[in-house]
Formats: sequence, C-alpha cells, structure tokens
Amino acid sequence: MTMSGSATAGTTLGEASERETLKQIFPRLPRSFATIVGPGDDAAVLAAPDGRYVVTTDMMVHGPDFRWAWSAPYDLGWKAAATNLSDVAAMGAVPTALVVAIAAPSDTPVADLLSLADGLRDACAALAPDCGVVGGDLSVSGTFTIAVTAFGDLQGRRPVLRSGARAGDVVAVSGALGVAATGLRLLFERAVDENGEPDRARFEEVLREHPETVGAQLRPNPPIADGPLAALAGATAMLDLSDGLALDARRVAEDSGVAVDLESSALGDDVRTALTGGEDHGLLATFPRGTALPGGFRPIGHVAAGSGLLVDGRLFEERGGWDPYVGWNGHAG
Amino acid sequence: MTMSGSATAGTTLGEASERETLKQIFPRLPRSFATIVGPGDDAAVLAAPDGRYVVTTDMMVHGPDFRWAWSAPYDLGWKAAATNLSDVAAMGAVPTALVVAIAAPSDTPVADLLSLADGLRDACAALAPDCGVVGGDLSVSGTFTIAVTAFGDLQGRRPVLRSGARAGDVVAVSGALGVAATGLRLLFERAVDENGEPDRARFEEVLREHPETVGAQLRPNPPIADGPLAALAGATAMLDLSDGLALDARRVAEDSGVAVDLESSALGDDVRTALTGGEDHGLLATFPRGTALPGGFRPIGHVAAGSGLLVDGRLFEERGGWDPYVGWNGHAG
Repeated sequence: MTMSGSATAGTTLGEASERETLKQIFPRLPRSFATIVGPGDDAAVLAAPDGRYVVTTDMMVHGPDFRWAWSAPYDLGWKAAATNLSDVAAMGAVPTALVVAIAAPSDTPVADLLSLADGLRDACAALAPDCGVVGGDLSVSGTFTIAVTAFGDLQGRRPVLRSGARAGDVVAVSGALGVAATGLRLLFERAVDENGEPDRARFEEVLREHPETVGAQLRPNPPIADGPLAALAGATAMLDLSDGLALDARRVAEDSGVAVDLESSALGDDVRTALTGGEDHGLLATFPRGTALPGGFRPIGHVAAGSGLLVDGRLFEERGGWDPYVGWNGHAG
Repeated sequence: MTMSGSATAGTTLGEASERETLKQIFPRLPRSFATIVGPGDDAAVLAAPDGRYVVTTDMMVHGPDFRWAWSAPYDLGWKAAATNLSDVAAMGAVPTALVVAIAAPSDTPVADLLSLADGLRDACAALAPDCGVVGGDLSVSGTFTIAVTAFGDLQGRRPVLRSGARAGDVVAVSGALGVAATGLRLLFERAVDENGEPDRARFEEVLREHPETVGAQLRPNPPIADGPLAALAGATAMLDLSDGLALDARRVAEDSGVAVDLESSALGDDVRTALTGGEDHGLLATFPRGTALPGGFRPIGHVAAGSGLLVDGRLFEERGGWDPYVGWNGHAG
C-alpha cells in the first residue's frame, strides 16, 4: 500500500504517477475516527477498541457491475462505499474505515478519480459519519475496477449472523424493496441504443423521468444506522439485501434451519419485483416476537419451523436476484 | 461479501455461480487464527487482541502486473499473498488474515481459481503460518484482477513507520537485492516472441536456465518473520522494498527528515540493479547504532543528518523502480 507527489486535474493517469495521483486524492477523503496510522506508510493502523473488528470486501467491474454511460465517477464512488457499508451494518456493526483499490485505464482523467473520491467521501458523510478512507492502491488496467474493503466496530455486541433466526421470530425489513431493480430494468430497457448498448443521452432522459428508481440503482442510500440499532434491539439474524429478498430470505432460512414465511400484503404493489429484484441494500432481520422494531424496520412476515421460503404460507421457489456470470450480456457501455 | 453451492473442476466461471465456485475454493484456504466469524456471512469478524490492527491493500492486474504466459495461477496466488504479507511485516506486525477479491473473465476455468487458492494457501503456510483467508468476492471482468487486503497484529508493540530514522542509526536490509528485477529483465528480454509479446515456450526455457532469479520475480519469498523481529530489536524505521532500494531508501530519508548513506560494497556485484531494481520485497530498516541485528538483517549503510539518498557519501539521484503507468507497454501476454 503506497500513497503519498502533484498532478493537475487536466492530466491522465498515464501522465501522472501513482504517488502524485494518490497525493491529490487523499486530502479529499474523510478521515476515519479509528485511524492510528493513516495513509502514507506500508500499511494503516486502526483502533479496535472492543478487541474485534468486522471485515468485508466487494469489487465492482466496468461492464457487468456498472457502465460509464449510466454511472458518473461520483456515483461509482458513492455506490462502492454504500454497498460495503451495508455489509458491515448487516453484522450489527458501526462502519469505521474503508480501504480502496482502483485499477483504471491509463487514459483515465485524474479528474475522474477525484470525483470518485468525492463520491466515497459524501457516501461516508451521509451514511456513516465516523467512517473514513485509511488506505488505497492505484493500478493500471484495461478494465476500470474498484475493490473496497470495509471495517466495522461491534461496540461490545455479538455479531448478528444469518444463522440465528428462530421459529416465532418476526421478519422485518428496513429500506425499499424492488426500487433499485426497477431502476435497473428501466436502464436496460430504455437507456440503450438500437444495439442494446448503454447510451448516455437516453440515460439522461430516463433519469429525468424516473429519478427515484434510477437513483436507487446508481446511488443507493442503505439504512446503515439501522444495523447497529437492530443489534441493540436484539435481532436474532440479519442480512444485507443485495441479491433480492427471495434469495436472501432463503439464505436466512437455510443457515438458521427454519422456514421464513413472508406476507405478500406487506411487500407493496409489485410483489414479484419486491421478491426477486436485487441491489436494494436494505436490511432483512429477524426479531423475537414482541420486540419494538427499531429505526426504519417494518414487519413483513414471520419465522416458522420447517425449511425454505414461503409467501403467504406457500413455497416460493423462484430464484430472482442478479448473478453477473449468468446475467451479463458482455456489453460494457 | 458472499461466499458459500458445487461446481466441478472442469467447468468455467461462466457455467458455475459465484456461490458454487466460492464453496469449492474456501475449503482449500487456510483458516486464520484470528477468525471469530469466518466466510459465509455478510462480513467476517476477526480478533484484535491488542486493540489495534494493521491493514494494507494491493491489486494485481493482468497485463501490467502479471502475464499468464509467465505466471501460473498458483504463482499469482502466491505472489498476491506474499507482497501483502510483506507490507504488514514492514509495520512490525504479524500477519493474521487476508481477504481476497477476484475479477476474472467468464471463460476462466474454475480449476485455475482452485490453483490460485492453493498458491494463497501455500504462501501463507510458508511465510506466515498463523495467517488465513477470511473472506472474498468473485466478479466477472474482461481483465483478470486480484485485490488482496491483509491484516496484522502488532502484539502490543508500536508500529514501525518510515519516519523514525535518526542520524547515527544503522541502515540494514533483510532479503535479496536486485534478484527479482534481474528475473523480470530476463523475462522481458528472452521470454517474448518476435513481437515482444510474452511467450510461454520461451518462458519455460528461461525458467530452466535461471530458476532463482525468475522464481524471485514470480514467486517471491519475503522475510516476513523478520518484520516483527526488527520491531522487537528496536527498529526506528522500516519499509517493504517494493519499488527498488534507491526509491524506498529515499522515502525513509524524506519521511524521517534525514539522509540515508549506503555503502556500495555492501550491495553485491551489481550495485546499479541492487539500487534500482523493484519488487525485491525485502525489508529495509534502521536500528540504533550498536543493535545486534536480528534475523536476516545485514548492515548496508547509515543514517546521517541532511537529506536525500547518498551512496558512498555522494548524492544518488537515479530514479529506478517500476511505475506501471510509465513502465507498461500495453502488452498483456
């Protein structure tokens, strides 16, 4: 890990050195409250006051995971932070820090990386104010790629796993269901040219007409604070909703050795999209019956003896969710 | 972070799902002694017994950072682990865990990922036996990319920074100097076809003739245990030698506000390559005069009042080292 030079914003990565570029980027990034040694040495040193720390990592790749025709660099930075913060929150932890590795084509404007850094910063400020960026790495690649590793503090609490749901628990969700997937469907249907390739002009039009759904897809606002709140309220199991409610609820059922039974009346007007749409990045949690649900959590079902996912008492087997290996058509945008 | 399915080794990533593939990979990986919650949930939970943890991240990209004609998947896994472990050791910490994010073309054989996992495992076993892989992420990309984030435990000691060298200190190094760079030069000169593209058959020949130098480049053996030993012995500054001794020694001089004066007689037969060759991944450290140098450390100079890098008392300004933005010719191999 190296990060410490002075490129100007008009240059490209190929003209500036890694050190010069990182020296421009780091001052824009938020400082983590957990920092003991920050960027600039071989490694960072972070505080872990409770003697443990939470770690998660996620990579986003141009083509399957995002397209420049639809995502500005700022949006990419925001989303890369938000999705990782959500995985930390889903353990019941408070996000403390991120490290960010980026590989970019050598003709990438340094200005794009600065915008990406602003997106990282603003997502942390909005979603997890104590969280900062403590390190990074910058490489050259034919394919723009960002890998974020996020850390969190359990503040003395037990981590909330997927495996703790018990028969009788209430199933609750915080955050919207199916909105991000509706945004993605609009983009694939309408923000493309005649050949199905992502198209910037048509994107602008779709965004103007559907700012909420498209925004939920490109710049998600996961309910990060609700993760620790759920842990404090006694959540028995919790999960970040990244692959669709049906798939993620089935994981809780499988890992906990129970059945999860959802009520369609609690899933909004478009029940199918609520169940199968991915990338909501809300939180799915189970609580002991009678718990006063914290934050934005609302009940959507209950845990029962048995196995699998039920909707209104009947087995729901549709897969849903997004698997880039299966779902990507190879178009890069 | 998701990782839990059963692909067979004959399939490609495009035929297996991420979960299936990760379910095959994780059993091959070493368990970290620090694991509280391992792979399979939104995030891992690790022990930080001293209330702090060390974090570093590094990305390797097909083309600029490695080429399949020269690196088997096993070698890539080994090197990705070794280089990150070295950054942890350079803080004086004992490596405890890795998280690994990989993006690969959908036609990548699952067997290649299993070999890569074996390389990660064997590097940890050989270099840092308490260290394991606690999480990962698998994505699809046109460009094979691996990002490793590594963690370490300071065991109650102060981190050894680049900024602590004081006039009068001994400058010492552990590990070979210039060998990995000699290996890389041999590869670029002789393991290429008529068009300068990496060539597997010629590579095999070069490897047979120069197993030590080419091996040092492709499968480095950094002296990880010497990092904590240096800290225990009172090292005032330490750094992983990734960008060449000259460049890295200049960093210690700059960050510490001192001059570093190296003795050419201590740098072997090829002094220029020892000074400017990158990717040695040895450790450069400074110790108070009179310290019994620990492990594999040997003296190569001293710290003086002033600034910059001197060799035999004269300013050495050659840059050296490897910057992929400047050094990569665009050939992927």
